[in-house]
Amino acid sequence: MKMMEKAGNIYDFRVEPQEVDFTLRARLAAMCGKILNTAGHDAHRNGFGTDVTMKDNNSWVLSRMAIEFDVLPTQYEDYKIRTWLNDTGRIISVRNFEMSDAEGKVFGRATSQWCIINLTSRRPCDLTPIIEMHRQYIFEEPAPCEAPHKLGAVETEHSVVRPIVYSDIDFNRHVNTLRYIEMMIDALPIELLAEPHKVRLDLHFVKESRYGQILTVGYRHEQGTYLFEITSDEGAVICRATFAFC
Amino acid sequence: MKMMEKAGNIYDFRVEPQEVDFTLRARLAAMCGKILNTAGHDAHRNGFGTDVTMKDNNSWVLSRMAIEFDVLPTQYEDYKIRTWLNDTGRIISVRNFEMSDAEGKVFGRATSQWCIINLTSRRPCDLTPIIEMHRQYIFEEPAPCEAPHKLGAVETEHSVVRPIVYSDIDFNRHVNTLRYIEMMIDALPIELLAEPHKVRLDLHFVKESRYGQILTVGYRHEQGTYLFEITSDEGAVICRATFAFC
Repeated sequence: MKMMEKAGNIYDFRVEPQEVDFTLRARLAAMCGKILNTAGHDAHRNGFGTDVTMKDNNSWVLSRMAIEFDVLPTQYEDYKIRTWLNDTGRIISVRNFEMSDAEGKVFGRATSQWCIINLTSRRPCDLTPIIEMHRQYIFEEPAPCEAPHKLGAVETEHSVVRPIVYSDIDFNRHVNTLRYIEMMIDALPIELLAEPHKVRLDLHFVKESRYGQILTVGYRHEQGTYLFEITSDEGAVICRATFAFC
Repeated sequence: MKMMEKAGNIYDFRVEPQEVDFTLRARLAAMCGKILNTAGHDAHRNGFGTDVTMKDNNSWVLSRMAIEFDVLPTQYEDYKIRTWLNDTGRIISVRNFEMSDAEGKVFGRATSQWCIINLTSRRPCDLTPIIEMHRQYIFEEPAPCEAPHKLGAVETEHSVVRPIVYSDIDFNRHVNTLRYIEMMIDALPIELLAEPHKVRLDLHFVKESRYGQILTVGYRHEQGTYLFEITSDEGAVICRATFAFC
């Protein structure tokens, strides 16, 4: 089988009606959600998912991520996500993704950096024992796109203020990753989302935010690139991101 | 096969990590989402989904719904949703749901009233031609719970104001049903959601709301029941709902 020559595992998806926007293409956030869920499923299937790490009171946490789409698939379109680990160190594990259509054409790429934190101390754990146990799931194939860019402080020009609500939070009462992505996309001009664009998204999660806090989603626009910074009402930076459209 | 004795089709699900709240039980809105998606899938499978109606510029629209849960399933728990149509008239088609756990124990029930509207005139269509073509998918088995209750005007005591954002809207630029359910749940006291309760939810969609409007989510609390009314900034009632906990 040709598929077997490539690193990692392949998962099949279809763009569901609830995932599309008014252009009948999948929403960028819906695709990011599928990528994140694929990471969770694949770790679970390979025996090192959060269900296993939780036995030691540890959890996988996403630190940085870069996602590129040449085009977003349309309603009812079938697509595949291939995912594989490479370049895993003592603190950071790199998980990659490649999205392809029914004809096998690659239309999206992503690379993400994860650590495992202890849920009590909130500090990262040494990944060495997990890597030793799961060497067969770490591949040489490099990431399919540039690593997440370094993101500096943003002098924001526009902002939206919103409280953290029940539907935003996960098992740990922290805002879930996908909700941050949605908050930022919802702050963008809708005209931008109405037209098809190539897009690259760089994300850097700095600090967790939790139920009871109020977030400020601020951004600045520079020649097709939107630089975001989300801060909490205590003034802490929660995450930074850039959305580059072309 | 015993399953075949019951009306309708059965779909298999598992509670995914992104669907649970901090109690590790599925969020009520996530379960409502699965119910609504099951309706869409089943109509599609039986040949009268929105993909087919759209060819005539018509779309299924949810009018009223009642949902009951004795308990919400926990993370990674397998469950089934059985769905069937009964009691279909000229304007309203009734679709029912029964949720059961891996042991076959029923833990949730729902019944919903749908019409087909023309996307240009926004008026309901006569369902007779669709019913004539699909008689084999309409069953005698009654709804598994009381029909959606009539919901009168609510004198609200508390309210949350929020603009409609990109992530709220569907292919038609209208707020999607699941988002209304989330808005109302997010307005509830979080302590209520932290404890397991039996819950019955009655929903009545009055008018569509669209991108650009600002919604007021108001409610009044009466002995374990929360009566909601969502209105637009033009003062129109968009939807009413009651959440009864016991």
